[in-house]
Amino acid sequence: MDRPLIEPRTLRGFADLTPTAALHRRRLLRVAEDVFSSFGYDPIQTPALEHADVLRGKGGSESDKQMFEFDDPGGRRVALRFDLTVPLARFAAQHTELRPPLRLYQVGYAWRGERPQKGRYREFFQCDADIVGESGPSGDAEILTMFATALSKMDVGPVLLRVNDRRVLNGLLTDLGLLDRTVPVLRALDKIEKVGPDAVRAELAASGVDGAAADRVLGFAAARGDSDEETFAGVGELLAGGGEGRVALDQLRRTVELAVAAGAAPAALRVDPGIARGLDYYTGLVFETTLLAAPDIGSVCSGGRYDDLAGLFTRQRLPGVGGSIGLSRLLAALEATGALGPARERPLAVVTLGRDDDLRTLLGVAARVRATGALDAEVYPAPVKHATQMKYADSRGARFVLTLDRDGSVSVKDLRTGERWSAGVEDLAALLTKAVAAAG
Amino acid sequence: MDRPLIEPRTLRGFADLTPTAALHRRRLLRVAEDVFSSFGYDPIQTPALEHADVLRGKGGSESDKQMFEFDDPGGRRVALRFDLTVPLARFAAQHTELRPPLRLYQVGYAWRGERPQKGRYREFFQCDADIVGESGPSGDAEILTMFATALSKMDVGPVLLRVNDRRVLNGLLTDLGLLDRTVPVLRALDKIEKVGPDAVRAELAASGVDGAAADRVLGFAAARGDSDEETFAGVGELLAGGGEGRVALDQLRRTVELAVAAGAAPAALRVDPGIARGLDYYTGLVFETTLLAAPDIGSVCSGGRYDDLAGLFTRQRLPGVGGSIGLSRLLAALEATGALGPARERPLAVVTLGRDDDLRTLLGVAARVRATGALDAEVYPAPVKHATQMKYADSRGARFVLTLDRDGSVSVKDLRTGERWSAGVEDLAALLTKAVAAAG
Repeated sequence: MDRPLIEPRTLRGFADLTPTAALHRRRLLRVAEDVFSSFGYDPIQTPALEHADVLRGKGGSESDKQMFEFDDPGGRRVALRFDLTVPLARFAAQHTELRPPLRLYQVGYAWRGERPQKGRYREFFQCDADIVGESGPSGDAEILTMFATALSKMDVGPVLLRVNDRRVLNGLLTDLGLLDRTVPVLRALDKIEKVGPDAVRAELAASGVDGAAADRVLGFAAARGDSDEETFAGVGELLAGGGEGRVALDQLRRTVELAVAAGAAPAALRVDPGIARGLDYYTGLVFETTLLAAPDIGSVCSGGRYDDLAGLFTRQRLPGVGGSIGLSRLLAALEATGALGPARERPLAVVTLGRDDDLRTLLGVAARVRATGALDAEVYPAPVKHATQMKYADSRGARFVLTLDRDGSVSVKDLRTGERWSAGVEDLAALLTKAVAAAG
Repeated sequence: MDRPLIEPRTLRGFADLTPTAALHRRRLLRVAEDVFSSFGYDPIQTPALEHADVLRGKGGSESDKQMFEFDDPGGRRVALRFDLTVPLARFAAQHTELRPPLRLYQVGYAWRGERPQKGRYREFFQCDADIVGESGPSGDAEILTMFATALSKMDVGPVLLRVNDRRVLNGLLTDLGLLDRTVPVLRALDKIEKVGPDAVRAELAASGVDGAAADRVLGFAAARGDSDEETFAGVGELLAGGGEGRVALDQLRRTVELAVAAGAAPAALRVDPGIARGLDYYTGLVFETTLLAAPDIGSVCSGGRYDDLAGLFTRQRLPGVGGSIGLSRLLAALEATGALGPARERPLAVVTLGRDDDLRTLLGVAARVRATGALDAEVYPAPVKHATQMKYADSRGARFVLTLDRDGSVSVKDLRTGERWSAGVEDLAALLTKAVAAAG
């Protein structure tokens, strides 16, 4: 062919998952889905593309700027979702045939045109779960318990869910007469771990919060003690007695207690007044999660309560609380820290193909091995050199290589132990299953 | 709030999956993934958005017109993928670190701005699996076997994989001196089941294929016999002896034989010279799948061989063969025919919340029930009227309702049998597990 080649490449911030990463993601995803189901959450799926007005202005001006928004072939203004929470609110308002409270989960991609950096992609995979339609403390606690459980069952190493309530900070701002500055203050505080307190102080000043007020806000964000009791005491001192902040603080304490009663490991939860979350729609509980082996990569699981979000779509009251595991970021963190174990779920057997072999026999051998349910099996698809086929089996992480002998039996090489043995076609599958069970 | 509501709605051709449909899709998807893995196929994931030049001109002019293509915020020309095969070809050409042959699968959405109709969406979920890097007959057969196996394990009712080879038709067109008309002839034939032979004859005439030549082409497409043997004989008569068509026909016969030897049910495979496939990139094997209970909905699993596709991206020879289960369409067909069984994987227990109940105790009860692994469990999140909570449990398809008694034991109502019994908190989980195991 003489025409010029098209360079095979992906867009900046968009990454392919190669087999090893994709196998790990499949495992993590199934664990998350199984945990969500065990808590009574059902899956839903909303489209990647929505009418732009459904998404616009929900996350805040930064989200709007980062949206992939365009005119579709029919001239409608559309956009790729930037999270799974706004589509959920739209879904809950639309599907009035479903009886609330709705316990729903959704897994899938979201898109933001932000600057790509470590663990931050323009296309990223999220696992969201939410309760919509009730606003009791039990929902807040359940969300914390469920995400702590999911992360624990995913076997990703120790994590810390850092929990706060926006109304605690609102209480402080009320005390300071700065309630109208809530949005810029939250946005500024959200960056404190990334940019440090001096940069936050400058951003606060630009929003008209300076001097003693800025000291109080920064002191509040830094009021995390060595234990939740210390934190509650320290934060309590910064708030006026009997005000909204104190009430919210008591509720937060109860939420954490309930989460522990419901099965969350106490060591996985910590109250942190510095947690703000960047998105505008949160109204109460907020949380982020640090992977202790990779704290710099940012939160791998975040969420909170958003009691007014569905109110943009319906007059029916549909408060919500939920969270989201950032699977793309989590996977990147686990890759970076070398915490990913073997990817393959079942051992793989590669059947080699010799020039004189009867392909039907080989395909039959693979089918028998596969039918055990204990091994995956494939036939090398061309009669190339045996050494090439061995190298291939090795590159695939295969456990066994099977070769048809001239007498009709099958030679087995165990690539893990180096052992070699042979068996008749009839006995082979059972013997392989036994070998797998014995060696684990 | 006084601001006007935003109407909660999805774009035309884009559908939400509500919990029942999404639960079914999860089950079908996991079966497909498990079957692909058992054949040695590893997952990959490519982005939803690609550089537009990567996708443009690959499927044919119709695909190009239907692409969601736009300028991203950075001014790059980008497009949403219209299938998973072109991104796979790009992936295979790019990831030279992976040693071919590549057995890969990918599940995910693709987007086409075509007219929505029954079983045809603008956003649709596909399960693709392909072998890239070898072109022996074993790959063609394996793809047929694997998709027949996946559809059989999905338990979707009887299906018929209708198999053809484009080179057989090419042979006929060579005999007729019309090889340069291949693309319009294939496109016309691809619609024969939808529009009938007269409309195809008109479309052929518009491409300059008429008279005796059109008779031969239409006769060929209708040459399906009652058995593959009859079909081979009938098609063979229409082809010149010793030509390309006859050779391809013999290969097709061998491919079907191998697929059966590898485990495909013979009744699930049928040679059909009328199968053409609309996309331009196929070069050999092509197949479509009819769900016998819903033949009108169109093919639920299609694919073929595309030996030149990766050649647009690389000078390395990377022939490929693969297939794709159209999960959105399959799900729509199963819904329409009432073939979907119960959606929930495990029985659900709903714990009611009374005004005087200790929430910690209830959350603990749910955690114990959940920990059995045999049931899902949730606590109703607000102390509303008991009757409301019962209605909710019913609407969720729950199997058990658990209510805390004043003496600290738990009352159980089995919504399936109507039985009521009670148990201490310690024994409850074990008794529920036993009840589930007994009733199945």
